[in-house]
Amino acid sequence: MSEIHHDAVGIGNAIVDVIANADEAFLIRHGLAKGGMTLIDEARAESLYAAMAAGIESSGGSAANTIAALASLGGTGGFIGKVRDDTLGKVFAHDIRAGGIAYVTAPATDGKATARCLIFVTPDAQRTMQTFLGASIDLGPDDIQPEMIAQASYTYLEGYLWDPPECKKAFLKAAKIAHDAGRKVALSLSDAFCVERHRADFLDLVTDHVDVLFANEAEITSLFQAPNFDEALQKVRGRVGLAALTRSEKGSVIVAGDDVHVVDAIRQDRLVDTTGAGDAYAAGFLFGLARGRTVVESARIGGLAAAEVISHFGARPKTPLRDLLARHPV
Amino acid sequence: MSEIHHDAVGIGNAIVDVIANADEAFLIRHGLAKGGMTLIDEARAESLYAAMAAGIESSGGSAANTIAALASLGGTGGFIGKVRDDTLGKVFAHDIRAGGIAYVTAPATDGKATARCLIFVTPDAQRTMQTFLGASIDLGPDDIQPEMIAQASYTYLEGYLWDPPECKKAFLKAAKIAHDAGRKVALSLSDAFCVERHRADFLDLVTDHVDVLFANEAEITSLFQAPNFDEALQKVRGRVGLAALTRSEKGSVIVAGDDVHVVDAIRQDRLVDTTGAGDAYAAGFLFGLARGRTVVESARIGGLAAAEVISHFGARPKTPLRDLLARHPV
Repeated sequence: MSEIHHDAVGIGNAIVDVIANADEAFLIRHGLAKGGMTLIDEARAESLYAAMAAGIESSGGSAANTIAALASLGGTGGFIGKVRDDTLGKVFAHDIRAGGIAYVTAPATDGKATARCLIFVTPDAQRTMQTFLGASIDLGPDDIQPEMIAQASYTYLEGYLWDPPECKKAFLKAAKIAHDAGRKVALSLSDAFCVERHRADFLDLVTDHVDVLFANEAEITSLFQAPNFDEALQKVRGRVGLAALTRSEKGSVIVAGDDVHVVDAIRQDRLVDTTGAGDAYAAGFLFGLARGRTVVESARIGGLAAAEVISHFGARPKTPLRDLLARHPV
Repeated sequence: MSEIHHDAVGIGNAIVDVIANADEAFLIRHGLAKGGMTLIDEARAESLYAAMAAGIESSGGSAANTIAALASLGGTGGFIGKVRDDTLGKVFAHDIRAGGIAYVTAPATDGKATARCLIFVTPDAQRTMQTFLGASIDLGPDDIQPEMIAQASYTYLEGYLWDPPECKKAFLKAAKIAHDAGRKVALSLSDAFCVERHRADFLDLVTDHVDVLFANEAEITSLFQAPNFDEALQKVRGRVGLAALTRSEKGSVIVAGDDVHVVDAIRQDRLVDTTGAGDAYAAGFLFGLARGRTVVESARIGGLAAAEVISHFGARPKTPLRDLLARHPV
């Protein structure tokens, strides 16, 4: 087995977020499904952007956020995802590399622009996302770097990646490389609407290719079409080796083989924007596991990372998480 | 005299900010003058950006920030400033219009890219700015819309505009239109280094063309080459009709003819990033004046706006300032 260079390598959509406040009436007026992520085309992105309040732009993308938070914790990470060679693509590449993350995916030189996600934050701090996938969907099997995957403790995949057809092949190629090298594969279900779109595929994936599953309450109940969280929890047991099920302010439930651990959330009184909370949790959990911590300790690190990210606008940490972890040891 | 359509029209550089954390060692290593704004060329902007941490992008520019905050207070505003027809130019135009601000300056179709300001925020919340003026400097007298100026209670000019040569002419043209229409002209000195560059011009301007002067302690002492704030204050009296001199946590001092008013700052325990504090103060002060409030009340509105802006990353308000003003009436 070759040397380990990364705690985790993420594969996902390479997206620049545009975040602005919106009220509930705005969501209704524009027919936006609150709390979810909807795929839109460039024309719809333009018209929604025109109606949107003044915003801030920052690099995003679910798996990319996770790797950024993992690096902020002091972990070593890599990322694979596609941008176009335009202004936003340069911003994305700059930001991920500035975090010390290995990122060498070649940008597309023609075709669609770098992906954008319009994020509407309502007064309750919930985010509603409208994503134009742009150049992201050009990620294919050729972009998977076998050495990077083989040398990472965890290969982390976002469920969103299942939307663009070529990305599935990239995803399965990476999972095979990881397992052949004796590494683990983690998957986030990403979003309940995403689960709706790909339920059958995701059930097969979870059973056959995934060692660590991340899901929130809505996603896991949707996956198993369960009437409630407890029934979904029973279906997870035995089906996947390790699952981290997040429940917002109720913390998380870890299913590790036959064991179930309930882990409290870290209290955060300053709730501003929940964008990236699940991504940050996954970062803390994977960082803990990769560094030999117990699953419960890893879940607590996940909770600490999530608490930081929801205290401000934007999906990536603003305070170095390694400092936060040093001040609040787990 | 024609009807009034705007409380204030701002004329300034049209800039997109890139904001990231940096430590003191970073500033030293890259030779950055802490707390100031330095003009840089595109090559330097590229190399500093490469060294910069992951950031967030948001629309900025001193006078543009002021008009955005004025609109957030419920005021009516217009803005004149030049972008290129590129991605960042579209972001700038979107954000200012999303605030309900009149903005019709034609974008440049060739030449330099939209202006960028790299902002390094140190752990003490101070900001150090490095500005590539780009397309901003193509603003000229032809971009000044006489009706917009003549129909605004205040025409607000940023000192930074004195750097690009053609902008001076635009500035003087606007001041003449405003005065011919019986309106007032306000100027912010912008930055102590900017005052150093243009001291003689600024002294003439303040005496001959400016009705309302905004300056902080460093700027006003630099303008008069005074040994301390109190001596600078004495030089202001009699030279300009109305001056608002800001002193960070010490509040502001208003010089109104022979009267001097000391106004306390609004306490802000959550100090994150001082970028835009002076711009927001000017917004509140001009909004108050335009709406017939006393100079002291206007200074308090300025303080309230500044307190909001320093509580988060980015130079423009995140909470609608009219709501804040409703909760904390002045």
